[in-house]
Amino acid sequence: MHSFEELSKEFASRFSTKHFPSQPVNLYGPADYFLSLGGKRIRPVLCLMANELFDEMNPDAWYAANAIELFHNFTLIHDDIMDKAPLRRGMQTVHEKYGMASALLAGDVMLVVAYDYLNRADATYLQKIVKVFNQIAKEVCEGQQIDMDFETKENVTMDEYLHMIKLKTSVLLAGSLQIGSILGGAGDGNQQHLYEFGKNLGLAFQVQDDYLDAFGDPKKFGKQVGGDILANKKTFLLIRALEVANDVQKKEIKDLMQSNTEHKVERILSIFKSCGVDAWANQLKEKFLEESLKQLDDVAVLSSRKKHLMDLAGALIQREY
Amino acid sequence: MHSFEELSKEFASRFSTKHFPSQPVNLYGPADYFLSLGGKRIRPVLCLMANELFDEMNPDAWYAANAIELFHNFTLIHDDIMDKAPLRRGMQTVHEKYGMASALLAGDVMLVVAYDYLNRADATYLQKIVKVFNQIAKEVCEGQQIDMDFETKENVTMDEYLHMIKLKTSVLLAGSLQIGSILGGAGDGNQQHLYEFGKNLGLAFQVQDDYLDAFGDPKKFGKQVGGDILANKKTFLLIRALEVANDVQKKEIKDLMQSNTEHKVERILSIFKSCGVDAWANQLKEKFLEESLKQLDDVAVLSSRKKHLMDLAGALIQREY
Repeated sequence: MHSFEELSKEFASRFSTKHFPSQPVNLYGPADYFLSLGGKRIRPVLCLMANELFDEMNPDAWYAANAIELFHNFTLIHDDIMDKAPLRRGMQTVHEKYGMASALLAGDVMLVVAYDYLNRADATYLQKIVKVFNQIAKEVCEGQQIDMDFETKENVTMDEYLHMIKLKTSVLLAGSLQIGSILGGAGDGNQQHLYEFGKNLGLAFQVQDDYLDAFGDPKKFGKQVGGDILANKKTFLLIRALEVANDVQKKEIKDLMQSNTEHKVERILSIFKSCGVDAWANQLKEKFLEESLKQLDDVAVLSSRKKHLMDLAGALIQREY
Repeated sequence: MHSFEELSKEFASRFSTKHFPSQPVNLYGPADYFLSLGGKRIRPVLCLMANELFDEMNPDAWYAANAIELFHNFTLIHDDIMDKAPLRRGMQTVHEKYGMASALLAGDVMLVVAYDYLNRADATYLQKIVKVFNQIAKEVCEGQQIDMDFETKENVTMDEYLHMIKLKTSVLLAGSLQIGSILGGAGDGNQQHLYEFGKNLGLAFQVQDDYLDAFGDPKKFGKQVGGDILANKKTFLLIRALEVANDVQKKEIKDLMQSNTEHKVERILSIFKSCGVDAWANQLKEKFLEESLKQLDDVAVLSSRKKHLMDLAGALIQREY
């Protein structure tokens, strides 16, 4: 069995191959460019780790891992178009560099190539893993649409936000683990525990991401701190604050969201703190992490085999107590 | 066995079902809208006809037919975004009606649902049909990119144009037939003959389409006659004319393409005629149709079983002699 770091290295090496033909260059060039920007490759490695949990690695898990990573990159290329994002990982997004039409089409063909990798898996589990993959893919599209809907929706409840995050972020982590486990011969129960492990881990990660965007150390956090606040983005923190703040605070938050005054970030952070949103977020993250680890605990394999997945959860989610 | 019309009616009836959940409405509403615009459903019916050529209909052919039609509609939604087309079948395109982001995502999810239908096919042929489907899907993306590249490419040769049309239009017809035949238990040889039948039929159809855009009867032709000429679109006719015209004619064509004078269509048509491009196009169409029918003839089943496909070819391609 291998650690996240070991599989990550091995996957990165295997994934840095040619996934596309060279012609037409205006189609496959943009696709190659985007993959060259790299990434943490967490999802494919989750698939590999879940697979190794049950037995020696099934070689088909490498195909599934490729498919998952290509699918993830397809969603990023298309999300960047929809969000009009200029940068991704500090580099030009595909539509900025090559135009919208080529970015759209490069994403499309990347999704097809993802299915091509899946289809190389042995017939034993093929239909099952494609079914899970399709379900994830639909849900990720749904999550993206709901996220876009939120931009113009005035009141987003915590339940609605949780549902959106689950679809947009969590199900891909969850499904990557499930696909890996199917290829490892896991039964329905173990598949489901791993799915729930991933789902809750994803939720914990998102709470942490929202938290760090507001309260993170600018030196350690990769992005601009307060970016979500400046963009009026609905986050765990904002939605919670609007739930628990008093009327004066609520009005101030809503006024600040209408404006872009110099002290916007500072003022909103101050309200977050006086409402105890920071402590609440840490508790919520902890709750999801605990549920996640409980689900992993329930997977019916020797505890020693789960060590690497536990380590990974700990590394992704920093515990602060 | 059933005629094109019979299967077309039956497919239309079965296809007019709910392919998507109802929520989120901003994702699935645009997808439903586009499917409601209708279409001739030629590709799925080719799949069904090829299937019936070999035996009683395999029920899985209906799933494959759905997948093919959804794939085709996915490409139309995305092509319309790329081409900034305002109308499709006389109605607003998806991006015009719902915005670019929703159109992009509706296309994405439609492709996923297409794969979901494919994945319901019995394991016997699943891997084979998905392999063909993926190959087609990649080639259609390639064809669309090459077509976009042509917009800014000054000299497009006949070979390059043929290659583009093959990818953008023909392979989907060809592959639909091949997928149907695989599900009918056809061997490689018969699959290949049906593929080539569809490919050549597609080429004949495109020659006819280019011809009718220039020389069609405005009363019978659904679109504005001369539309390709006004848009400076590379077509079989234009490329041929630039190959065979004398220097004076060539210069006049190029000058007319730079301008948008009142007599542009009339002048270019006149040059087409003096170069004999109209007669040449009819011969070329005939050549592709003959090759197409020859390939159908080579399919090793009783001639009587091929009647419906022959009739269809004749109906799609009007013979004028």
